[in-house]
Amino acid sequence: MDTKADALVLFMPSGRRGRFPIGTPVLDAARQLGVYVESVCGGRGICGRCQVSVAEGVFAKHQITSSADHLTARSQTEERYARLRGLAADRRLSCSALITGDLVIDVPVEAQTNRALVRKRAEARPIERDPAMRLCYVEVDEPDMEQPLGDADRLVRALEAQWGFAGASIDFPLLARVQDCLRRGGWKVTVAVHTHTRPTVVAIWPGFRDTMYGIAVDIGSTTIACHLCDMLTGRTVASAGTANPQIRFGEDLMSRVSYLMMNPDGLPALTAAVRGAIEGLIDKVTGDVGADRADVLEAVFVGNPIMHHLFLGIDPRELGGAPFALAVSGALTFPARDIGLGINPGGRVYTLPCIAGHVGADAAGATLAEGPHRGEEITLLVDVGTNAEIVLGNRDRILAASSPTGPAFEGAEISCGQRAAPGAIERVRIDPQTLEPRIRVIGIDAWSDEAEFAERIDQVGVTGICGSGIIEAIAEMYLSGIITSEGVIDGALAARSERIVATGRTFAYVLWRGTHELKVTQNDVRAIQLAKAALYAGVKLLMDKLGIAAVDRIKLAGAFGSFIDPKYAMVLGLIPDCDLARVVAVGNAAGTGARMCLINKGYRAEVEKLVARIEKIETALEPRFQEHFVNAMALPNKVDAFPRLSEAVSLPAPRLVTDGEAAGRRRERRRERGGGRGSEQGGERNDSASAD
Amino acid sequence: MDTKADALVLFMPSGRRGRFPIGTPVLDAARQLGVYVESVCGGRGICGRCQVSVAEGVFAKHQITSSADHLTARSQTEERYARLRGLAADRRLSCSALITGDLVIDVPVEAQTNRALVRKRAEARPIERDPAMRLCYVEVDEPDMEQPLGDADRLVRALEAQWGFAGASIDFPLLARVQDCLRRGGWKVTVAVHTHTRPTVVAIWPGFRDTMYGIAVDIGSTTIACHLCDMLTGRTVASAGTANPQIRFGEDLMSRVSYLMMNPDGLPALTAAVRGAIEGLIDKVTGDVGADRADVLEAVFVGNPIMHHLFLGIDPRELGGAPFALAVSGALTFPARDIGLGINPGGRVYTLPCIAGHVGADAAGATLAEGPHRGEEITLLVDVGTNAEIVLGNRDRILAASSPTGPAFEGAEISCGQRAAPGAIERVRIDPQTLEPRIRVIGIDAWSDEAEFAERIDQVGVTGICGSGIIEAIAEMYLSGIITSEGVIDGALAARSERIVATGRTFAYVLWRGTHELKVTQNDVRAIQLAKAALYAGVKLLMDKLGIAAVDRIKLAGAFGSFIDPKYAMVLGLIPDCDLARVVAVGNAAGTGARMCLINKGYRAEVEKLVARIEKIETALEPRFQEHFVNAMALPNKVDAFPRLSEAVSLPAPRLVTDGEAAGRRRERRRERGGGRGSEQGGERNDSASAD
Repeated sequence: MDTKADALVLFMPSGRRGRFPIGTPVLDAARQLGVYVESVCGGRGICGRCQVSVAEGVFAKHQITSSADHLTARSQTEERYARLRGLAADRRLSCSALITGDLVIDVPVEAQTNRALVRKRAEARPIERDPAMRLCYVEVDEPDMEQPLGDADRLVRALEAQWGFAGASIDFPLLARVQDCLRRGGWKVTVAVHTHTRPTVVAIWPGFRDTMYGIAVDIGSTTIACHLCDMLTGRTVASAGTANPQIRFGEDLMSRVSYLMMNPDGLPALTAAVRGAIEGLIDKVTGDVGADRADVLEAVFVGNPIMHHLFLGIDPRELGGAPFALAVSGALTFPARDIGLGINPGGRVYTLPCIAGHVGADAAGATLAEGPHRGEEITLLVDVGTNAEIVLGNRDRILAASSPTGPAFEGAEISCGQRAAPGAIERVRIDPQTLEPRIRVIGIDAWSDEAEFAERIDQVGVTGICGSGIIEAIAEMYLSGIITSEGVIDGALAARSERIVATGRTFAYVLWRGTHELKVTQNDVRAIQLAKAALYAGVKLLMDKLGIAAVDRIKLAGAFGSFIDPKYAMVLGLIPDCDLARVVAVGNAAGTGARMCLINKGYRAEVEKLVARIEKIETALEPRFQEHFVNAMALPNKVDAFPRLSEAVSLPAPRLVTDGEAAGRRRERRRERGGGRGSEQGGERNDSASAD
Repeated sequence: MDTKADALVLFMPSGRRGRFPIGTPVLDAARQLGVYVESVCGGRGICGRCQVSVAEGVFAKHQITSSADHLTARSQTEERYARLRGLAADRRLSCSALITGDLVIDVPVEAQTNRALVRKRAEARPIERDPAMRLCYVEVDEPDMEQPLGDADRLVRALEAQWGFAGASIDFPLLARVQDCLRRGGWKVTVAVHTHTRPTVVAIWPGFRDTMYGIAVDIGSTTIACHLCDMLTGRTVASAGTANPQIRFGEDLMSRVSYLMMNPDGLPALTAAVRGAIEGLIDKVTGDVGADRADVLEAVFVGNPIMHHLFLGIDPRELGGAPFALAVSGALTFPARDIGLGINPGGRVYTLPCIAGHVGADAAGATLAEGPHRGEEITLLVDVGTNAEIVLGNRDRILAASSPTGPAFEGAEISCGQRAAPGAIERVRIDPQTLEPRIRVIGIDAWSDEAEFAERIDQVGVTGICGSGIIEAIAEMYLSGIITSEGVIDGALAARSERIVATGRTFAYVLWRGTHELKVTQNDVRAIQLAKAALYAGVKLLMDKLGIAAVDRIKLAGAFGSFIDPKYAMVLGLIPDCDLARVVAVGNAAGTGARMCLINKGYRAEVEKLVARIEKIETALEPRFQEHFVNAMALPNKVDAFPRLSEAVSLPAPRLVTDGEAAGRRRERRRERGGGRGSEQGGERNDSASAD
């Protein structure tokens, strides 16, 4: 037994520590330090949510010798709980266990496992919990004629006395249910308290209840993903995705805005489409675990600015042209009933802030998740879609921009392009001597020169080239000398290889010969050059603003980023030079950011503060963008060196090939690119690109 | 020209004063002192709402010599305003007029005139304005690609910069309209900002707009009254009343609760009935002045607890029996859309707090209006209905209770009783020598012994006795010796006057002989005795609690209080002894309290604080109530003296008459009285009353 008057207690993983008088309940110590430990019953030993364990041993660094004996023995309350609901030998109820000596306490943190589904090499990351919505069991005084306070008012008073919520109010629509719930629960109820600004009771159940869910939703223009989290553990218990049904109004963002310009009354239909899809996902995820929709009490949403507006029922047409004015950029918190969302009507919706007219709440979520603002290293975070969203910086300064890459990286605008699906070529290697390719297609776990490929190929087929396939094909064509650093397919090589074929006045490379041919044409190369030049120019602009020549780390977010090989992306000059080991795919980082905000309100404050201090760069307004764009048309770049890449890959020496032909075609293609913002900015870039 | 560096400025009627540097705008000086001066345009000289005038002269008490010259001459802004919209010679725009010397500034306060409609001798009272809802003209920056803040976010920023509202939010359903309004208004908009807890933008209009209304509604069980206030002046511009259509579910409160007990699904119908009636009243008052419902931005409601609950859609059945638990007692603030109220959907509803299960928000409003808590004098405030609500106290201590008087005072339970309407006897005088009566009836402006009465009587008729008539009849019968202090009609007098007639085993007094006879029977006397004893016992109980033997002032609220003669009320012992000059009717004080809360949010804080500190006395729980009740059955009272009344009126000496007969009938009648609380408490009182 420790005879000191107080003890040193360290909580992990937060690392918060403090001295507490002997006899202090562990739960109280955690609260005093601001360490979040769940409790629904408020220390009555009913809910068992406040479990912790003792890390035993000598922690020299912290000067703590921690032992399970430095807690009082299991109390009657704990024994009763263990008997009724089970309690692992090393677990204690922190409301019942009193501190008797120095301790290192482990607060269980559920690993955030979902990312592993998207990309296995990304590590599961623990997120500490501190939810905005709290489930609180309360025992309310019975009515007293001498103190004729209303039932709801007595509930508020009990909440203050038993949970410390001062000045709480009750959501108006709930008032009509309070009296009945109190009586059915024998003056014991469980309430959900939303702690944003003023504490507000938003839901009520008779008696004790310890079930609460939340959803995190990433609304993409193509797909919508929904995760269901158990709010009392932080664990993601179900996930589901669906195609965004707005696609019938327009394949990409700008075509949906165009639809609205032509159909000004079409907003409700677009809003209903996305909300309907989300309702379907809520059905799916709650159904998967048998959860009641009324137990879903929080919903967090991310999406690009246009999806964000359409989901909220806000006309996004202003985002279709300069100055790309967002109707609202800040984070929003409002009752689910305001948008008829099919969760508990008192549940609360939180939407992350948008960064700028083309850098949305999804980019804000990804930035929060990947945390460039938390470290010393200069981190580049890129999410490639029709617009590439680019964030660059470190804890001192952080910048963001978007660049209109167009859909080439998604396989559109490519002659044999297709979405990533079985039969699509996803990997390419070209022998620099023979110029013969090896390929892999989605659905076959072998290269085309392996036996298994031949066995399976008739079944799967080779149907086209997906985004990562075209990146690798063009990069390998460059590395093997088939195309020059200016991006011209060298027709002279037709003499060396029958893979090089003339197509009109330019040449193409035949990647696959089967029932039909799959070729990479000069046009395909140009489309990828335009897209990658736009992306790189945006990145370069931010590097200029930040005054740096190189980045320390690159994170590729989104589906595209998950499947491309960083080496080939760098060979093509999509991204700047960097140690290849420090270029990683981070999967659906936007969705991760949404989940973080769902289970810890501290991340809401963090992302709001972060977005406010991000410097927004509008690429269209920057004179140097055009220069960077022109330089970035070359492979990997006309002026920028790639020393770190060169250590890993042998890059060909620059070599000139006449390109009059191809330049003519380039001008032509750019005039064809249309739609909203793309066309305006495309126009500017055409001029300078052709003046090249 | 004053050469001092600063000047002394006194604002009236608030009496706030301070020194300000020469050159300070009057509006700024007012704001620094917390004196509310309206301004919609925020000091741009557009709205003209900030007009003040200078009180000229030497104010010795304040050591101020005030002159209109102590303001700068009319500015160009003022001249332009005067030209466009007119400005009285003595008026200045306080945003443009700068202080150059000592001043007494009059801030125009619209007299609150409505009370005068109810009772002429009550004086119109000025109420200073400080509304919870503010109309603010804002000029918003245009979108900037380099600072891509959303339109709504820039509006919030402008509101902070131009109006000082920090941390404002925008009501979620309004967000979809912000962008369009800003563009239609050329980046100039007028917004309504609700300043309860966190400032919230709840409505928006393009450009400049200075129209805002509010409604104050008193929901009575019999009638509903609605007042429309111009929120920019505080003036009541229209009033309307209607019968409460819930009457079809039950004549009085308890019968409506009984209806719900028998029809548990009937709540929506009762709620819809009262809300529908209110919608009709809103139609009427807005129609009267040509106002747009969307310009009504605040609504304040008072009502007794059952009306309060039914209006809010809350089941009031718990109020039908002990412990009379209110579902909610505190003041509520919520969006009008939450109850589908047909004002601006972003408008806000405020309901005053209820004091106890039978002392409602109406009593809270009346207390606020009559202010017993503001003075030194012990004030008794009584609102007589089916339940009498009683408030007693002064600034140090204040108590409240309700007493179940039953409907006798309203003419029900009286053999010839009727509601106050043409033909009803409202005034009675009896000659103590001849025992002959003189009467006045509603609709004839003369006594029955005057010529005009005879001329008009055939036309109007004499149809019954209203509440004030029965009070005077019984009081005069007592003063003239027809009934004893125990309330027995003295049959021996039949020998002296043919007005005294036998009816079975008791006697009656014939008040009117025309086409038919109108009699005051022994039962009528007993009904009034029971009602007044209940009222007086409640008052006495509060006097006991407060430890006082007499009150300084009596205020009679409500319609009944407006029409009874305080002298006769005191002769009957309805109310305790008091200087008759200090007994006044205060009309619809509950409605006045609602209007006060509508136009000045300070009164909301006041009434909430007040209700929290009112000591609630439940008469049913007090052992002395029965004793007081028994004593109060006598006229005026068995034990309490009425020395001040005796100075004005010659009270008969106590005299005994055998009353065995009447006591038997009394027991019988009390058993017949039914319904909820009345029956329970009635039961207790029967026993003691018959033991009398």
